[in-house]
Amino acid sequence: MQNLDSKIIRPTLLLDKAKCIANIETMQAKAKRSNTRLRPHFKTHQSAEIGEWFKERGVEAIAVSSMQMAEYFANNGWKDITVAIAVNVREIDLINELASKIQLNLVVESQETIAFLQSELKHAVDVFIKVDTGYQRSGMPAEATGSIRLLINLMDESDKLNCKGFLAHTGHNYQASDQKEIYKNHSKTLLDLNELKDVFRKEIPGLEVSLGDTPACSISDEFYGIDEIRPGNFVFYDIMQYVLGSCNEDQIAVVMACPVIARNIDRNELVIHGGGVHFSKEYLEADDEGTKLFGSIVRITKNGWSEIIGGGYLASLSQEHGIIRCSDELFDEFVIGDLIGILPVHSCMTANLMGRFMTTEGEWIETMNSKQ
Amino acid sequence: MQNLDSKIIRPTLLLDKAKCIANIETMQAKAKRSNTRLRPHFKTHQSAEIGEWFKERGVEAIAVSSMQMAEYFANNGWKDITVAIAVNVREIDLINELASKIQLNLVVESQETIAFLQSELKHAVDVFIKVDTGYQRSGMPAEATGSIRLLINLMDESDKLNCKGFLAHTGHNYQASDQKEIYKNHSKTLLDLNELKDVFRKEIPGLEVSLGDTPACSISDEFYGIDEIRPGNFVFYDIMQYVLGSCNEDQIAVVMACPVIARNIDRNELVIHGGGVHFSKEYLEADDEGTKLFGSIVRITKNGWSEIIGGGYLASLSQEHGIIRCSDELFDEFVIGDLIGILPVHSCMTANLMGRFMTTEGEWIETMNSKQ
Repeated sequence: MQNLDSKIIRPTLLLDKAKCIANIETMQAKAKRSNTRLRPHFKTHQSAEIGEWFKERGVEAIAVSSMQMAEYFANNGWKDITVAIAVNVREIDLINELASKIQLNLVVESQETIAFLQSELKHAVDVFIKVDTGYQRSGMPAEATGSIRLLINLMDESDKLNCKGFLAHTGHNYQASDQKEIYKNHSKTLLDLNELKDVFRKEIPGLEVSLGDTPACSISDEFYGIDEIRPGNFVFYDIMQYVLGSCNEDQIAVVMACPVIARNIDRNELVIHGGGVHFSKEYLEADDEGTKLFGSIVRITKNGWSEIIGGGYLASLSQEHGIIRCSDELFDEFVIGDLIGILPVHSCMTANLMGRFMTTEGEWIETMNSKQ
Repeated sequence: MQNLDSKIIRPTLLLDKAKCIANIETMQAKAKRSNTRLRPHFKTHQSAEIGEWFKERGVEAIAVSSMQMAEYFANNGWKDITVAIAVNVREIDLINELASKIQLNLVVESQETIAFLQSELKHAVDVFIKVDTGYQRSGMPAEATGSIRLLINLMDESDKLNCKGFLAHTGHNYQASDQKEIYKNHSKTLLDLNELKDVFRKEIPGLEVSLGDTPACSISDEFYGIDEIRPGNFVFYDIMQYVLGSCNEDQIAVVMACPVIARNIDRNELVIHGGGVHFSKEYLEADDEGTKLFGSIVRITKNGWSEIIGGGYLASLSQEHGIIRCSDELFDEFVIGDLIGILPVHSCMTANLMGRFMTTEGEWIETMNSKQ
């Protein structure tokens, strides 16, 4: 086994393939136990190669967060893709191109979009109605069955839009203050989707309901009536999910390895090369005084990383610099040129920015964001 | 003139070339008036093509924020590049490669790094000592003349490290609460750099001092004793700089154009395709209650954009979605499929994420972050 330390030159997102695959298998096993389909959301890794790890384990259907991401995965052999964001009508050419090649599933929430698609689509697509079960980002309110029926009626008259069912995202689970709140939000989503199913079952043959969010899919074992789950972040997890209780520390499958470039002994601060262009600027509030935490510290080992080290945290980020605030002991442990590991707050944002990952075996994994 | 609206399919960073060039010329004129050199920081645009706009106006020396950015601009004809971040010793191979080709200027702040470079450099480089004038991110405290002298003595003994002078970044200006605070911070940096110049003038022939930050370089006309200024963000400006008073609204040279994908009439919210992977998640606090503002709203016109529209702002971002909170009037103005313009909070982060820009003439400008 080669020493990882010798392979890392600059800020690098390390990926522990074994942990990642264990996360995939755990979620796949839970879906099977719960008689629901795992349609993993690929927005977190955005990588054809990591997609193969799912495919090898029987996954055939995926969700993505943009039409361009759908195009990338369609070009990499995926035949059943849900674009889990309301249709951007300006992308009609790409929609038509993809709909001619694969089973493309779209998401709508307005009469205007349905009318546009009916007019402009060249191929039939399956369509989910986005419903809002409390996140208040987008979607028809789940209780607005009258308005929802109008959308369904419009699609009934259409020869191109096949209404497939309802899709919800319990996104407010990411802001939950404790697990109880996640259970509560999740229960509301389950209730809402099952009620919609009851109301529209007769009108929509083969009606399906789809829900997705890593916190509930990780924490709950209850998915009655749910046809598919669409978690994404679980493939890597991160500090936000660890704090929410979605994962154990050792399920976090990615860590940023950053070189120490300066040390400030007066403030017990290590300066790393690693900033907002690597991590993103997402943070957690570490206490009631609003102390910002941009990541937790680990040691990079020969072939992976240690448990979280107490006594320090990533306290601030500018474009390329990060500041690690340290105890005396932690400060003394690191010299200039050393690597320090940082578990990211939000792996989706960090992975998107980094564009490629190095496995703990030292191999590069490319994504749709790999640079020229 | 073609209509911009017909060219934009998905979230697009629009660049007004005329405004951008005016920003360059204004800063260049100020540098000339102040008898200082403009060494623009290219971390904001990261684009060889935009670099040419500077070159055509007589700029020959630049700053960058990473060694890879130095490599990119060296490959695009730049011969005098300061990498304005403490040396990452792991990049020694790239440092040696670049030092063999161009005038490479490095930044150090520790004896360890100097000793490493003396041992490993294959070519002579100019070196600036990073000094901290109050930002408390990195650098030797400006008043620590004893410790600074130790670094200079080490370089005196070196045949490869030519100590060129001192480099400071008044980064705390980005957090200033008003212009008075920016003037105060800037004055402290001027005082510190001039004092260092007085102390070490005899020991370092041709000693130079370099300072950089867009707020002070935009607001102040006072640069006595300063050999060069290194502002970066001024090339585009953004809402953060507008709020700080660094620029007028019509100097902001970039805007995100995002399609409206949904409308929520109950909450007067427009949902756009445009999220954290486009804007970054930087925000400003819009009031004392901590209301987050992720961008200000403009109308996209045939060949540019309007003034800021009252009655709405970009209120939240997830990975691909943005939520615009609206007055009744603003809400009624936009339908699904329309473009809405958003002046970004921090153009450096947004430009870095977007990777390419469309000019208001409809031409694409590539950067070192353009994707495959």
